[in-house]
Amino acid sequence: MIKQIAILGASGYTGAELVRLIATHPGMEIAALGANSKAGQSMARVFPHLRHLDLPDLVTIDEIDFSGIDLCFCALPHKTSQEVISALPKDLKIVDLSADFRLRDPEAYETWYGNPHSAIEMQGEAVYGLTEFYRDEIKAARLVAGTGCNAATGQYILRPLIAAGVIGLEDIILDLKCGVSGAGRSLKENLLHAELSEGYHAYAVGGTHRHLGEFDQEFSKIAGREVKIQFTPHLIPANRGILATAYVSGEAETILGALMADYDGEPFIEVLPLGEVPSTRHIRGSNFCHIGVVADRIEGRAIVIAALDNLTKGSSGQALQNANLMLNIQETEGLMLAPVFP
Amino acid sequence: MIKQIAILGASGYTGAELVRLIATHPGMEIAALGANSKAGQSMARVFPHLRHLDLPDLVTIDEIDFSGIDLCFCALPHKTSQEVISALPKDLKIVDLSADFRLRDPEAYETWYGNPHSAIEMQGEAVYGLTEFYRDEIKAARLVAGTGCNAATGQYILRPLIAAGVIGLEDIILDLKCGVSGAGRSLKENLLHAELSEGYHAYAVGGTHRHLGEFDQEFSKIAGREVKIQFTPHLIPANRGILATAYVSGEAETILGALMADYDGEPFIEVLPLGEVPSTRHIRGSNFCHIGVVADRIEGRAIVIAALDNLTKGSSGQALQNANLMLNIQETEGLMLAPVFP
Amino acid sequence: MIKQIAILGASGYTGAELVRLIATHPGMEIAALGANSKAGQSMARVFPHLRHLDLPDLVTIDEIDFSGIDLCFCALPHKTSQEVISALPKDLKIVDLSADFRLRDPEAYETWYGNPHSAIEMQGEAVYGLTEFYRDEIKAARLVAGTGCNAATGQYILRPLIAAGVIGLEDIILDLKCGVSGAGRSLKENLLHAELSEGYHAYAVGGTHRHLGEFDQEFSKIAGREVKIQFTPHLIPANRGILATAYVSGEAETILGALMADYDGEPFIEVLPLGEVPSTRHIRGSNFCHIGVVADRIEGRAIVIAALDNLTKGSSGQALQNANLMLNIQETEGLMLAPVFP
Amino acid sequence: MIKQIAILGASGYTGAELVRLIATHPGMEIAALGANSKAGQSMARVFPHLRHLDLPDLVTIDEIDFSGIDLCFCALPHKTSQEVISALPKDLKIVDLSADFRLRDPEAYETWYGNPHSAIEMQGEAVYGLTEFYRDEIKAARLVAGTGCNAATGQYILRPLIAAGVIGLEDIILDLKCGVSGAGRSLKENLLHAELSEGYHAYAVGGTHRHLGEFDQEFSKIAGREVKIQFTPHLIPANRGILATAYVSGEAETILGALMADYDGEPFIEVLPLGEVPSTRHIRGSNFCHIGVVADRIEGRAIVIAALDNLTKGSSGQALQNANLMLNIQETEGLMLAPVFP
Repeated sequence: MIKQIAILGASGYTGAELVRLIATHPGMEIAALGANSKAGQSMARVFPHLRHLDLPDLVTIDEIDFSGIDLCFCALPHKTSQEVISALPKDLKIVDLSADFRLRDPEAYETWYGNPHSAIEMQGEAVYGLTEFYRDEIKAARLVAGTGCNAATGQYILRPLIAAGVIGLEDIILDLKCGVSGAGRSLKENLLHAELSEGYHAYAVGGTHRHLGEFDQEFSKIAGREVKIQFTPHLIPANRGILATAYVSGEAETILGALMADYDGEPFIEVLPLGEVPSTRHIRGSNFCHIGVVADRIEGRAIVIAALDNLTKGSSGQALQNANLMLNIQETEGLMLAPVFP
Repeated sequence: MIKQIAILGASGYTGAELVRLIATHPGMEIAALGANSKAGQSMARVFPHLRHLDLPDLVTIDEIDFSGIDLCFCALPHKTSQEVISALPKDLKIVDLSADFRLRDPEAYETWYGNPHSAIEMQGEAVYGLTEFYRDEIKAARLVAGTGCNAATGQYILRPLIAAGVIGLEDIILDLKCGVSGAGRSLKENLLHAELSEGYHAYAVGGTHRHLGEFDQEFSKIAGREVKIQFTPHLIPANRGILATAYVSGEAETILGALMADYDGEPFIEVLPLGEVPSTRHIRGSNFCHIGVVADRIEGRAIVIAALDNLTKGSSGQALQNANLMLNIQETEGLMLAPVFP
Repeated sequence: MIKQIAILGASGYTGAELVRLIATHPGMEIAALGANSKAGQSMARVFPHLRHLDLPDLVTIDEIDFSGIDLCFCALPHKTSQEVISALPKDLKIVDLSADFRLRDPEAYETWYGNPHSAIEMQGEAVYGLTEFYRDEIKAARLVAGTGCNAATGQYILRPLIAAGVIGLEDIILDLKCGVSGAGRSLKENLLHAELSEGYHAYAVGGTHRHLGEFDQEFSKIAGREVKIQFTPHLIPANRGILATAYVSGEAETILGALMADYDGEPFIEVLPLGEVPSTRHIRGSNFCHIGVVADRIEGRAIVIAALDNLTKGSSGQALQNANLMLNIQETEGLMLAPVFP
Repeated sequence: MIKQIAILGASGYTGAELVRLIATHPGMEIAALGANSKAGQSMARVFPHLRHLDLPDLVTIDEIDFSGIDLCFCALPHKTSQEVISALPKDLKIVDLSADFRLRDPEAYETWYGNPHSAIEMQGEAVYGLTEFYRDEIKAARLVAGTGCNAATGQYILRPLIAAGVIGLEDIILDLKCGVSGAGRSLKENLLHAELSEGYHAYAVGGTHRHLGEFDQEFSKIAGREVKIQFTPHLIPANRGILATAYVSGEAETILGALMADYDGEPFIEVLPLGEVPSTRHIRGSNFCHIGVVADRIEGRAIVIAALDNLTKGSSGQALQNANLMLNIQETEGLMLAPVFP
């Protein structure tokens, strides 16, 4: 039976990416598209690249009848998301793509996001959506919190290494290079083409990026002690892609072994042979994540690099993968699209 | 039954694009990948974005056993293509993506390509691969000649207008803007990133582009008299996409009517409402073609604009669409992927 | 003696480009920078690339003392510009970069810009700033109206040809390809990097672009009769550059002759040998304009292509060239910077 | 008196950049342009962006009469450079832009470059061309070895910090992001626009990049002990620019103090206020280097980021700055061009 899907926040990039992926998903049908600011418009007008699809028009969230909906993706800004989700039916399956339910500790949420959480009880209920590591919990969950796209990339590198105890915990450095679609469709001077094209820079330098809240929570949990990494994202003049370069202490071969063991059989994680490194151009538009390990010339030091598409594996693809699990559909359904190169 | 597919010239961009599309095609399996210059390498090495697929290694064309192959895509350079195809089994179904079998007249071939044709009898046998206009012939064909990517774009605009007699034939101007992947993976100084990025220019100016051979052949045939258009392509710093701007004499509404009539029911051609214009970003990575019509301020003049992806609808997507027809598979199979935006 | 310069609208791209050019101009000093919306900020904050310069802070226009100013560049939006300029001292030399004083006919202004002109008497006083064609008037002028950047490019191709009577006037088609900085630093969804990068499209199709007002005025004046051209601009994913492709009836060699005659001795206009075409990458960041002529395969038809940098020769470079003339400085001073390639 | 300049290797990007800079230099004149592979061609043909200049045609190096030459820039590939320079007049002033004379130790040269040095005595004579730190030696030198562009960027960050003893020496990590023009105008598949655009990746991972030879030599010399850093360059889809992110142990304010002390009065090095970070878009096309310092959330850790243009401050601009010193011209002459933004 075809599952009926609603998408809230359908006028943003992650909303559009969900529609793109679901368009060829044989087990899902888009029943409602919510977007308060553009309610009344057709999706073809807001996103002409989806013009060939037979989609419902955008409506306000209030106008949606959730009674026939099997699962709702919520691609709204954080803070708005917790308010909207609080008001949805309590038995509705939800995959939230915002930051609102990623952190389990209300205090941590307030520290990183600057406002008290208004749905603390749901924070406890939510399952963290990093599929490969929370698969069983996600299958059983009602509310899944999609991870940050940078947070996902860093974790794909570091979780297996921390869990296996093959790297030092005191000197982990994560240098990220992110494409601009990660910033969303918001009108900011520094996101204009003329500002970004042909230039690049670091941002949120010094440990102020909010995805550190996720790193702190997850890495400390795995290690059984506080783990704090250094993390600097850089904005790159490309639309899609995250490349994470991790500098760690440890033996490259042991590290590669830990990654291969953890990701053995995973459909979307490709661990490269020792010495090979990934490129964002080789995962663009797809749900795949490539990870490579190289030994440094300095003994006992290694570089681990991961690449994924922030809108797909880092966000909407992850969300669909989780929704498949929650709806008892094959996990890879709708997600085996090959990357688009060149 | 799954059809067995061979791809010759698998180390080029159109070869890779064929693999990308067939990767999620339920009715086809890639049985052989030929690429003389890179024989012996794995596809993952030549195209790391296809790393997740279970593909045969690249081999020389001579090494391929064609006995179990249902259809062969030939994505070789022109001239090479006619030589290779001449030597293939005479009952093998072939979709050729080169220029070698596009022109019916051996003299026209020699004029535009500079060498005599070495397989003139097959030139006569080949069917021109512009699906929407040669569908029945393609279904019955053994050898289909894929069109030039620029030639396809221009014809999607002009064929219905010439056929319906709604535009003047003496003053047709076609100004094209092409992404760089159309030039292939060849090592030329003017295709380097540092040369192309942030700049753009016209090339083959003055009526010297080879795709004019196709325009001349097809438009004259439709009109029943000689039709010669002006055609200038421009190279744009983007990887994929062709945007064709046609300047014609005629009434915009009549022109739109002719397009809508011809493309009614076509799965991949989207005719936009009067006054709307397409963008290459809205068809990127897909098999769709968007066409828009606008009336000029000068009475009796109109602008018709089409956008498609040169590697998909302009080349490998078209080839797969034709292969589906030749193999009695549903025409749209494997081709309904939504465009990738942003 | 060093001339004292004020720039109003210094927080936009054309304002920043003026500062860049004047930075190495030996005969000018920037005495005041006006920008109401960012008043109080340092220029280094608004434009960090100018950080090495010793510049006055941004102030409101009201705060500027014009008594010691020799010349004022006005880089404000149209409509604002006419209001601000009306209130400036009546003997102040002004180069206006907005559209407000380009059209001599108040009715034509209202038609193209949608509001009545509020400084009609100054409209009459203003000299049109296309340096090569209004040099003597500019030298004597108090108020010079900078041309539209697209309008400049089209006129560099067509003025000599219309004046010499070497092309037909009924079928002139101008297809433009523009970089995104021409749209300015305004916050619009369609100017975001994620929207523009890797895609391109036509805009203001059908004869609705405001620069047509300039074409109509100037070409009709030269021809001594009404001349209306077809003009379609396209937005290209590059920051700087305009490439104009003109399709005309006429003999290529005669056309080239007319261009060479008119531009003989011009320091910034480079007419290429017959058959060569320009590229925007070869004029980027400079005040040069390259023009090439090619005969079409259709007898009596030719293509003429021009390239210039919209921010330099199309706007701020032109403005400085005119200011040099108005201040009796050598015309090329500060403007001989070579293009930046790659 | 105008100095007569020769440029060998004038058909590459650094050669063209030298011509661009010298074009507006009042104290230099280009007397000879050598480029064996393109000898006989005009510079306008090889680099149309220099078309407006009155330049000598390209000749073979053998054809150049060095008797009237005051200084020769050598922009040839390494290995070729040492052979050519060995054969030049022994009293000719030379600025070499290749890697051939950067390393003082012949063994280190052979280790990093794979071939024995053929001009070992000149290796000893050569002065390392990092202007701010070898100014006096450069003034007196006959042969100056331009630094690697990545090597320059890293040293601008780290030299003052190592010299002042304000950072730990055991855990220095340098993550670089480089534009593609650094790879030169060579025909490699991975430098094609279609390969690079919209994608990015690390290369020479694990401590294999040749510029490490320079880091090792210089940092160990300053520290008086062996210093080995970790260094990973990444290729970014932009034409110009290097952004270096250094992760160090030390106090941010102390680090900033050391940088400000060392660069006080330097015309081209801009140290930003604490907490601000540079962007490559703000130095593009110029000889400026911006450096910013940020404290990490982890006590005792800091991030220092530098940006410069690889073709200007990282190569040809540096070379011209050194040539000015060697010819007793004002150091900043020809180099105060403001960055090109947007």
